[in-house]
Amino acid sequence: MSSSNLGVTAAKGFRAAGVTAGIKASGTPDLALVVNDGPSLAAAGVFTSNRVKAAPVLWSQQVIKGGQLAAVILNSGGANACTGPGGFQDTHATAERVGAELGVSAGEVAVCSTGLIGERLPMDILLPGVDLAVKQLGETGGEAAAIAIKTTDTVHKTAQVGVGGWTVGGMAKGAGMLAPGLATMLVVLTTDAAVDSAELDRALRAATRTTFDRVDSDGCMSTNDTVLLLASGASGITPAPAEFADAVQQVCADLARQLIGDAEGASKDIRIDVTDAATEDEAVEVGRTIARNNLLKCAIHGEDPNWGRVLAAIGTTGAAFDPDRLDVAINGVWVCRGGAVGEDRSLVDMTDRQVVITARLNAGQAAATVWTNDLTADYVHENSAYST
Amino acid sequence: MSSSNLGVTAAKGFRAAGVTAGIKASGTPDLALVVNDGPSLAAAGVFTSNRVKAAPVLWSQQVIKGGQLAAVILNSGGANACTGPGGFQDTHATAERVGAELGVSAGEVAVCSTGLIGERLPMDILLPGVDLAVKQLGETGGEAAAIAIKTTDTVHKTAQVGVGGWTVGGMAKGAGMLAPGLATMLVVLTTDAAVDSAELDRALRAATRTTFDRVDSDGCMSTNDTVLLLASGASGITPAPAEFADAVQQVCADLARQLIGDAEGASKDIRIDVTDAATEDEAVEVGRTIARNNLLKCAIHGEDPNWGRVLAAIGTTGAAFDPDRLDVAINGVWVCRGGAVGEDRSLVDMTDRQVVITARLNAGQAAATVWTNDLTADYVHENSAYST
Repeated sequence: MSSSNLGVTAAKGFRAAGVTAGIKASGTPDLALVVNDGPSLAAAGVFTSNRVKAAPVLWSQQVIKGGQLAAVILNSGGANACTGPGGFQDTHATAERVGAELGVSAGEVAVCSTGLIGERLPMDILLPGVDLAVKQLGETGGEAAAIAIKTTDTVHKTAQVGVGGWTVGGMAKGAGMLAPGLATMLVVLTTDAAVDSAELDRALRAATRTTFDRVDSDGCMSTNDTVLLLASGASGITPAPAEFADAVQQVCADLARQLIGDAEGASKDIRIDVTDAATEDEAVEVGRTIARNNLLKCAIHGEDPNWGRVLAAIGTTGAAFDPDRLDVAINGVWVCRGGAVGEDRSLVDMTDRQVVITARLNAGQAAATVWTNDLTADYVHENSAYST
Repeated sequence: MSSSNLGVTAAKGFRAAGVTAGIKASGTPDLALVVNDGPSLAAAGVFTSNRVKAAPVLWSQQVIKGGQLAAVILNSGGANACTGPGGFQDTHATAERVGAELGVSAGEVAVCSTGLIGERLPMDILLPGVDLAVKQLGETGGEAAAIAIKTTDTVHKTAQVGVGGWTVGGMAKGAGMLAPGLATMLVVLTTDAAVDSAELDRALRAATRTTFDRVDSDGCMSTNDTVLLLASGASGITPAPAEFADAVQQVCADLARQLIGDAEGASKDIRIDVTDAATEDEAVEVGRTIARNNLLKCAIHGEDPNWGRVLAAIGTTGAAFDPDRLDVAINGVWVCRGGAVGEDRSLVDMTDRQVVITARLNAGQAAATVWTNDLTADYVHENSAYST
């Protein structure tokens, strides 16, 4: 196993496992466990802003308030969302089982779930799976854990950054429903830096704001999104806050890019750079609106540099701009200048998987980048048949 | 020709024509003219709320301020949007040509265009087409006009309501980009009732607010949407305002329903009834958010009653609701009760083209209905290849 696949076990002080509990009908791995052996248990979390929250999100939001996590248990094969009080009891029971097996408080165990909404988890299968996962915990278990949280992901996603004696590593899953405010995306980050929960929280929020929050594959926001950051302090090193924040940012950016690269049915990764906006918020608003325009996403799929659809999308926002001063480039060719026809669209080469759309608002100095994917027949096929 | 196809010539005092000017490469009809022979020229209009407006929209918005229209000229085959000052001059020249041919002021001629954004119109072809259209004007020309404004529409759309001696009729085009605030949708309504422009404006705004504005096929809003209402007064009858408004509403609802039924690549027409909302605005917000959820639209395409995606969509809105008190029915089966599993989803029959989703927020007494379509591979194919 190459060190780059260690993910959540790249940092010292962590063990992980990924096992097949039998939750998924497919018989593939479906239960992951990440354990922090300390000496510190400091942790922080960011959760979906969807008001319909899955039971594990409601549980983990409470748990994280203590600023400590001893373990994270994650299952694929069922979201445990919209499952009522019984579903919350299932999450509680899962945390209790992990706590009992590890000899820690259930109040220091976060729970994450992903899969179909509206179905109870098979607890008679899941709880024995917890026992199995505890038995298989290991210091190189990060890759197995990353594999066990996959749903429609075609590849597992890990990342790590090592900085002078300490490390930030992580894993992510999510191939659809990526959207602002995070979407069915589960991310666990670990570090052996000695950092308290307040600083973890600051670094995590700063990093997610410009990475996962600006990934908008299909505009749909999940009930289950969770990003957790655990610090063991096992390196004994306390980095400068800016240095630490930068490492967390790098790992988040790496994982976010992997999520876009593996989005359901996508054939293009689209980077939307909005520049010369009056404010960063307006740049993000314009970027997201472009990212969510189905007609444009179809055009990109067809390798059609249809800049008119970019302008039509920008026009629906409240951002400051003059329609006659909008410039749009596709892959570096300024096909629209001053709100009208610019360079010849036949100059645009769109054969690569990555497409860059630049929207210059000419209204200020702010900028933001939002990532999305094209809209394809494969996306329709995958999502027409997900629960049936 | 059946009287039900008369559209804009169903009401007395109007003539229309639809001709092939040659703007479209396909060689199908592409230029329509509607003329009001009076005695009244009262008119009102509603336009796209997109801030990037096509030249004909900018022109017609100015023209309608006078409250009078002698004619409307409409071309398919080019949107004349994002075409700069030259594009506006083209619109002006078109209105001038119509005015000269008819002996009316160009300032009483509205112009509508639809087609690809970012290309100039072939004026050497369009202007002779105007002359041809004037020659072909006739009192039964409504159907030909409706045919000439089609783009990706598979059928032409007309409607009419006759009420004790006076009539409201109309035509519409638009099969994609339908969205709130209207989308590439051109609608011309005519009546022989004797109604002044202020009352036309009131009736038209009230009707569009609950019909075209609640049709959201794909969430994309056009640069060219226009709805015009012309009154000739030729019946000599002035109806009660409520009676008149009701007739306009009926014709708009009929045309809006036809637009949804012919949306690009759609296999399902989806009616979303949001009930028990705190306010009508919140009911509309929730309806639109559900209508724009790509994952749900794919599920409906697959005849999968995936109510979890309805809840995930509702959760992203700011409307008043308690997540544990949300009820959702699909085709009358309450598959979600109290935010959790309700009746068995296998009871839902989704084989019909029309699907009804009912979202009961249990937060008040307001309600609204929004229409959308499913998301299909055909939609992707049509829109991947539109401009190439």
